[in-house]
Amino acid sequence: MNKDEKTGKYEFITESYLLDFRGRITIQTIGNYLMHAATNHASKRGFGYSDMSERNTAWVLSRLAIEINRYPAMSEPVTLYTWIDEAGRLFTSRCFELTDVTGVPVAYARSLWAAIDLQTRRPTSLDVEALGEYIVDRPCPIEKPCKIAAVEMETEGVPYKVKYSDIDINGHFNSIKYIEHLLDMFELDLFQQKEVKRFEIAYLAEGKYDMPLTLHQKETEPDHYIMAICNPEKAICRAMVRFIRF
Amino acid sequence: MNKDEKTGKYEFITESYLLDFRGRITIQTIGNYLMHAATNHASKRGFGYSDMSERNTAWVLSRLAIEINRYPAMSEPVTLYTWIDEAGRLFTSRCFELTDVTGVPVAYARSLWAAIDLQTRRPTSLDVEALGEYIVDRPCPIEKPCKIAAVEMETEGVPYKVKYSDIDINGHFNSIKYIEHLLDMFELDLFQQKEVKRFEIAYLAEGKYDMPLTLHQKETEPDHYIMAICNPEKAICRAMVRFIRF
Repeated sequence: MNKDEKTGKYEFITESYLLDFRGRITIQTIGNYLMHAATNHASKRGFGYSDMSERNTAWVLSRLAIEINRYPAMSEPVTLYTWIDEAGRLFTSRCFELTDVTGVPVAYARSLWAAIDLQTRRPTSLDVEALGEYIVDRPCPIEKPCKIAAVEMETEGVPYKVKYSDIDINGHFNSIKYIEHLLDMFELDLFQQKEVKRFEIAYLAEGKYDMPLTLHQKETEPDHYIMAICNPEKAICRAMVRFIRF
Repeated sequence: MNKDEKTGKYEFITESYLLDFRGRITIQTIGNYLMHAATNHASKRGFGYSDMSERNTAWVLSRLAIEINRYPAMSEPVTLYTWIDEAGRLFTSRCFELTDVTGVPVAYARSLWAAIDLQTRRPTSLDVEALGEYIVDRPCPIEKPCKIAAVEMETEGVPYKVKYSDIDINGHFNSIKYIEHLLDMFELDLFQQKEVKRFEIAYLAEGKYDMPLTLHQKETEPDHYIMAICNPEKAICRAMVRFIRF
């Protein structure tokens, strides 16, 4: 198998109705493109949603970091490449490169995935050998997702109730919806002057319907925020956002 | 110009990460497919977003009705046809047919569009002659959107604050986000037993950032609901949902 067959390549044309008020695609839309590419790349190579279900397992996204060089604008054709860069017993690392029509990278992303047993909801071992076949040595020049400090003790949370549209096919809070609700904590004013340079999230526990949640946010240094979504007992995710002025 | 050139044809494969908890695509996702098709169909024929901007005008969606025969499931290829069925001085009517891979219609939709002047935000005349060239005589066997009774006086509203992710490129509440917030008023239990057979919405005024809104809902007969989103003065949209047991 050559490098080209190992790397997935997906084409998108940014949808005008999915742009934000500045006419650019959002982190959530990029997140949806990444999920689309990951899903299709995996299923074409024998470890997709159905393959995992047959083994009574499912992929869960554990960490995701997205870094933006330039936000694509309206109806801009973009190409998304995805490949596996590491496969361990508990986690697989998948990278992404989003390029414009001239091949210039506009964004990179790194993600970490685990598999859970559908009955016990506990982590289960990955088939390291099979996944290892697909590892590609290709640069992804952004930092790996790292540990994010807890913010929930120091801030008062904004209540949030999980809704129908938040719930995905596994019956859980959709991974990308977490991002949407976190970014919605920022005022529109901020997005008028600044844009997200890096967004990073660690998924810690499953969000479920009717769970009373709180959203937390704190600026730890200029333009650098740590965030969390918590249920009454603990954080179900932690996130970090770095803005830059444009 | 023959009928085929007048009718737009768009292919989708339902995205697994956009399915609801039952593993079916949602009304919002279908709504996004419709917007994608409408946008592309218009721009390929000289009356798209950029063409309208050049004339200092923009399309606004006035009414939308979607009726579902069967909800497509995961990774199902679907084809969406769209065509203009009427063009008047103030409104253009656009129809949609969504078919499965065997050509069987799974959903139909009807929409009514107006153009506004970008300075005055008031309705402006459409080029009836130019749009008339594209009219196709093709059946769309669902009822046209009709007048929806007011519900806001009889019910206490649930407060809603418009957020960053709600705002589209025109600086307004995204048309499909209205639908998402309205359907989110229903408990998950309902979607476990019933599904939306028909969803209909009339957009009455522009929703803007930071506008304090209220969401209203009332069951007028079994499985038949009327809904509204209101600002402190008036309804900015009214909607109707009919559920059926599956």
